[in-house]
Amino acid sequence: MQLEKIAVVGASGYSGEELIRLLQNHAGVELACVTSRQHAGKALGAIFPKFKGRKYDALAFAPSEVATVAASGARIVFLALPHGLAAEFAGPLLDAGLRVIDLSADFRLKDTVVYKEFYGQDHPAPALLPKSVYGLPEIYRKEIAVAKLVASPGCYPTSIILPLAPLLKAGLIDPKSIVVSSMSGVSGAGRKVEADYLFVECNESVRPYGVPKHRHLSEIEQELGAAAGSAVTISFTPHLIPVNRGILTTIYATPAAGATPQAVADAITQAYRGEPFVRLGGGESYPDIKNVAYTNFIDIAWRHDPRTGRLILMSAIDNLIKGASGQAVQGMNLMCGLPETAGL
Amino acid sequence: MQLEKIAVVGASGYSGEELIRLLQNHAGVELACVTSRQHAGKALGAIFPKFKGRKYDALAFAPSEVATVAASGARIVFLALPHGLAAEFAGPLLDAGLRVIDLSADFRLKDTVVYKEFYGQDHPAPALLPKSVYGLPEIYRKEIAVAKLVASPGCYPTSIILPLAPLLKAGLIDPKSIVVSSMSGVSGAGRKVEADYLFVECNESVRPYGVPKHRHLSEIEQELGAAAGSAVTISFTPHLIPVNRGILTTIYATPAAGATPQAVADAITQAYRGEPFVRLGGGESYPDIKNVAYTNFIDIAWRHDPRTGRLILMSAIDNLIKGASGQAVQGMNLMCGLPETAGL
Amino acid sequence: MQLEKIAVVGASGYSGEELIRLLQNHAGVELACVTSRQHAGKALGAIFPKFKGRKYDALAFAPSEVATVAASGARIVFLALPHGLAAEFAGPLLDAGLRVIDLSADFRLKDTVVYKEFYGQDHPAPALLPKSVYGLPEIYRKEIAVAKLVASPGCYPTSIILPLAPLLKAGLIDPKSIVVSSMSGVSGAGRKVEADYLFVECNESVRPYGVPKHRHLSEIEQELGAAAGSAVTISFTPHLIPVNRGILTTIYATPAAGATPQAVADAITQAYRGEPFVRLGGGESYPDIKNVAYTNFIDIAWRHDPRTGRLILMSAIDNLIKGASGQAVQGMNLMCGLPETAGL
Amino acid sequence: MQLEKIAVVGASGYSGEELIRLLQNHAGVELACVTSRQHAGKALGAIFPKFKGRKYDALAFAPSEVATVAASGARIVFLALPHGLAAEFAGPLLDAGLRVIDLSADFRLKDTVVYKEFYGQDHPAPALLPKSVYGLPEIYRKEIAVAKLVASPGCYPTSIILPLAPLLKAGLIDPKSIVVSSMSGVSGAGRKVEADYLFVECNESVRPYGVPKHRHLSEIEQELGAAAGSAVTISFTPHLIPVNRGILTTIYATPAAGATPQAVADAITQAYRGEPFVRLGGGESYPDIKNVAYTNFIDIAWRHDPRTGRLILMSAIDNLIKGASGQAVQGMNLMCGLPETAGL
Repeated sequence: MQLEKIAVVGASGYSGEELIRLLQNHAGVELACVTSRQHAGKALGAIFPKFKGRKYDALAFAPSEVATVAASGARIVFLALPHGLAAEFAGPLLDAGLRVIDLSADFRLKDTVVYKEFYGQDHPAPALLPKSVYGLPEIYRKEIAVAKLVASPGCYPTSIILPLAPLLKAGLIDPKSIVVSSMSGVSGAGRKVEADYLFVECNESVRPYGVPKHRHLSEIEQELGAAAGSAVTISFTPHLIPVNRGILTTIYATPAAGATPQAVADAITQAYRGEPFVRLGGGESYPDIKNVAYTNFIDIAWRHDPRTGRLILMSAIDNLIKGASGQAVQGMNLMCGLPETAGL
Repeated sequence: MQLEKIAVVGASGYSGEELIRLLQNHAGVELACVTSRQHAGKALGAIFPKFKGRKYDALAFAPSEVATVAASGARIVFLALPHGLAAEFAGPLLDAGLRVIDLSADFRLKDTVVYKEFYGQDHPAPALLPKSVYGLPEIYRKEIAVAKLVASPGCYPTSIILPLAPLLKAGLIDPKSIVVSSMSGVSGAGRKVEADYLFVECNESVRPYGVPKHRHLSEIEQELGAAAGSAVTISFTPHLIPVNRGILTTIYATPAAGATPQAVADAITQAYRGEPFVRLGGGESYPDIKNVAYTNFIDIAWRHDPRTGRLILMSAIDNLIKGASGQAVQGMNLMCGLPETAGL
Repeated sequence: MQLEKIAVVGASGYSGEELIRLLQNHAGVELACVTSRQHAGKALGAIFPKFKGRKYDALAFAPSEVATVAASGARIVFLALPHGLAAEFAGPLLDAGLRVIDLSADFRLKDTVVYKEFYGQDHPAPALLPKSVYGLPEIYRKEIAVAKLVASPGCYPTSIILPLAPLLKAGLIDPKSIVVSSMSGVSGAGRKVEADYLFVECNESVRPYGVPKHRHLSEIEQELGAAAGSAVTISFTPHLIPVNRGILTTIYATPAAGATPQAVADAITQAYRGEPFVRLGGGESYPDIKNVAYTNFIDIAWRHDPRTGRLILMSAIDNLIKGASGQAVQGMNLMCGLPETAGL
Repeated sequence: MQLEKIAVVGASGYSGEELIRLLQNHAGVELACVTSRQHAGKALGAIFPKFKGRKYDALAFAPSEVATVAASGARIVFLALPHGLAAEFAGPLLDAGLRVIDLSADFRLKDTVVYKEFYGQDHPAPALLPKSVYGLPEIYRKEIAVAKLVASPGCYPTSIILPLAPLLKAGLIDPKSIVVSSMSGVSGAGRKVEADYLFVECNESVRPYGVPKHRHLSEIEQELGAAAGSAVTISFTPHLIPVNRGILTTIYATPAAGATPQAVADAITQAYRGEPFVRLGGGESYPDIKNVAYTNFIDIAWRHDPRTGRLILMSAIDNLIKGASGQAVQGMNLMCGLPETAGL
């Protein structure tokens, strides 16, 4: 069987590294090209000791150029680049006939005004936005399968949209009541060499940041709004916690009038019946980062609080896998007609 | 000068250990008696290697008996015992003429019905409740100074009540709108030898627990209600995070009609003007556990979110100090007429 | 193809859990039976949330009985039991015609006198010792392939024997000069619910233990002696460090007269040429636990110190994989005639 | 009483920060001046949130200039600068009549040839070397008290010299047999903003580095040689471990002919009798970083291994306190005629 050829552009950050880790264990595709400005010409195993002795040990980083990627024979290309830069690569790659899975924020927002509001610059490639599909397979499975351009969701958004979307779609919660508190491992910041992310500054530390208007709010509210059928505005506070990987999200919402706890449970359960990567917790379990680390699962649990009337939803993902590279591979599987769980 | 003599009953848990650490550096009092059923007869330095070579290295644990404590000459006694057991000691110690600072939950609640609801048993010493003072110096400073029985607040409550009380008192927030998410280091669970608290189960793990009705809600709502002048019911979700010490709390609340961000800032600022252990963050700072670890400070910051209209308050404390033993020593200082910051 | 059926006895510790994690990803075998006294009757996914939604989610723990295991159709059985107990199971299982891979220390030592010296009791099944093969594939590959009883090596021993054996075999180092310092993650202690292994006692802590005579010395010296062709006695100090997984070992040895640095490098390089799980570091690299975590690799590097004349060897493994369950699966692959790297 | 005035030059690294933390709790001196090129003009509490609300909150960083320091009235100045730079400040400050405690490596070595060998440059101020005293109070107490220039020891050296010096002095161990393995928390690398020290690169990681010739070997061997009365060359391997603070050192040495375990124990015990910051472990204890963290103690224990004949010594310190700033304050106390333990 001819394996689908794949490229990864910008493979030196944590998402790119995790993509390669997943692809080296994926029997259904061939990693034909990895690029990095910084490491061009060096072998993967020489830059990442963890890849020594593995399948792609000797694969050399190519320079991050469209022509090189196109020449590699890759049919699908992952962009693991900073936002802004990703948009510069996407157009030419699409023009060259490749399908693109972008892990940055560049193609997640449909509204260029919102993009400018949250990212502080004009959108670099607005003409491509109508083509892009938000890469959350549990919601856009069919669209992803045939997409030319997939915008892989952010880590926080994945942990927030999946628990809430079925409830908003069913009109079971008041969209104005949503309050979200999330805790992320430090790899969520990427491999940024800044004092804030030094070991001594993060270990034995917990801190909120990005209050009250973290960039991810834009895509969260877009997708929650799509589920609700009307605009949704929420409160969201991210926190940095001393773990390498993982996001734990706790969501508070007031049920809509007449929405019973049973109706809530039913809506979530039906929405995710048969989903290979969504695990729903029974009455007594709690999501825990350690149970999803190194997997593509999202664990979701919930409780109704009769004292306040509020619903509390909790979720856990590995931010580098279901929150980034694993979800992107899940999308790639759909695009290739492979089993959705292949390599995951 | 004759130093005030102090006893610590139940000195083998984390709170008791931290009390001793603080008292050994406190020049204004003398630790006359420490008790432990488990370690009776052994020297402090033999049980806790960290106390070797320090002031109380050779002090031997006495058995945990009222007569022994009374005979030690101590005038003030800290109870660092499980709830239920603390109440058994408090009465006889008070009868013997000692003043008691209890670190358990036994004397924090004024309402025995609430006690039973949250602790699952009848209150063991209801007659003592009217005498007890909730040991939060920023709110009950005068009462603590003359109290016979001080109920030292819980760790989560300290981190939640201090940011909210001035706002509720001034009628600046809607009491029904309060949602709280807290993250606690593992020492908050005490020195419990249970699988859940093993290193491998906590490291690289984050998990919520006690949802939706953690026991601390009872004292939080009692004190918030006292500030508001009417009953307050809130949502509260604690999370266990892999740090030894510290609590980070994030609070969401909707301002009352007409309450401006400036009015909020003024109310908090005025409430804590001159407070030695309350530090208020300016517009750009965030509380961080690492800045309060090993201190008796609470750091508080806040933001107004014009998108949702909500106020977001954030606080950080060391759960073993401002959340337990440091706060108890602060109270002791008041009771002894010492400078409130002595030894802290 | 008929898949080989496998059983795991005592599947509730960290090694057993890791075995199951590896076997669920192994396409070449079928996990037919898992046993646990504690969890008998409950499904794997109900006890270990991380196994929910995976291949063996619904597999119920059987009681830990020989008859049950034999009746499962399993042809190979892993024993993940405490030493002493493992020996009780091995004999009857062998008698029932199963092949046994024991992860305990029970069958690692050939000499019952040494067993008694280090384990403080008479060997429970001395008659089985002649049949057992020390399960280090890099050294005993052929013997493992046909063995009925494999004694899977300890974690520290794996990290120490592999770097040293080729040098001792070639007579390149003075056997009397060997000094070893190892650092182990906390999972090395197993899922023991003891105060020493609580998060707060291990985090921000580093401590030596078992000095000067850790039990693993017995098998280390047996195997080093076998390589050297004469008795070897070494110094070995293990340390507990705050990571979940991994062992980092640093070894000091004096080269034998005339043994050049090049001869050392050649001996190690030749010994491990073609080995799928041994990665040798070049001149500038250092082994790091993070590069081998969640893999079956051992990374080995070395330096010659012209100032002291000593050779310094460094190795890193994942204690739960190459140091326990991964190595056992590697052995199982050999026993089944599967590719040695299958599932790893 | 007139308090001695103190200055800290280069107060923005971890050692400088820790110095300020210690000095703010020190009742016997006054911090008159802190300097930082980077933060000049800003208040201490504005740069370090942890110092808000403390004694020196409002003290502004001065520029790092000799004239400014001299004009502050400070009589003793700590240099917390990179090596090389420290030497540039020391001369002019000494000329201005100040006494200098240098925390860098610049004045630790008596031999400029050794300095060049290990630090790769000519010594920047060789004329000052004869004046400098190695600031280890347990060995050079009298010299420190009257010194103009104190070279505060490195962190690893402190943990290695103190256990070994009494044994070398008494001729109880073979100087050629010494092998040392040390594990250091990440603050030992200083506040260097490099990828190697990012949280994700250090957490769940353990790695050796600087093998076989770490710079600290130069001062270790100088001081061990001074104790032995002849040149000493040792093997030393440092490791980076995921804790914020602390060094754990394990030392192997062969006793000299006729040196009994009792003689070893007696030599160490007598050497450190009455020492306020040296704690000797009995037969069953092990040093642990957590017992010395946030203190100026060094914990030392040892075992004799009859199997190999080797002696194993183990020590633990807080690298930022006994390994740096605490030791410097201990020296300052001696220089000021204050109690040696003041503020520690």
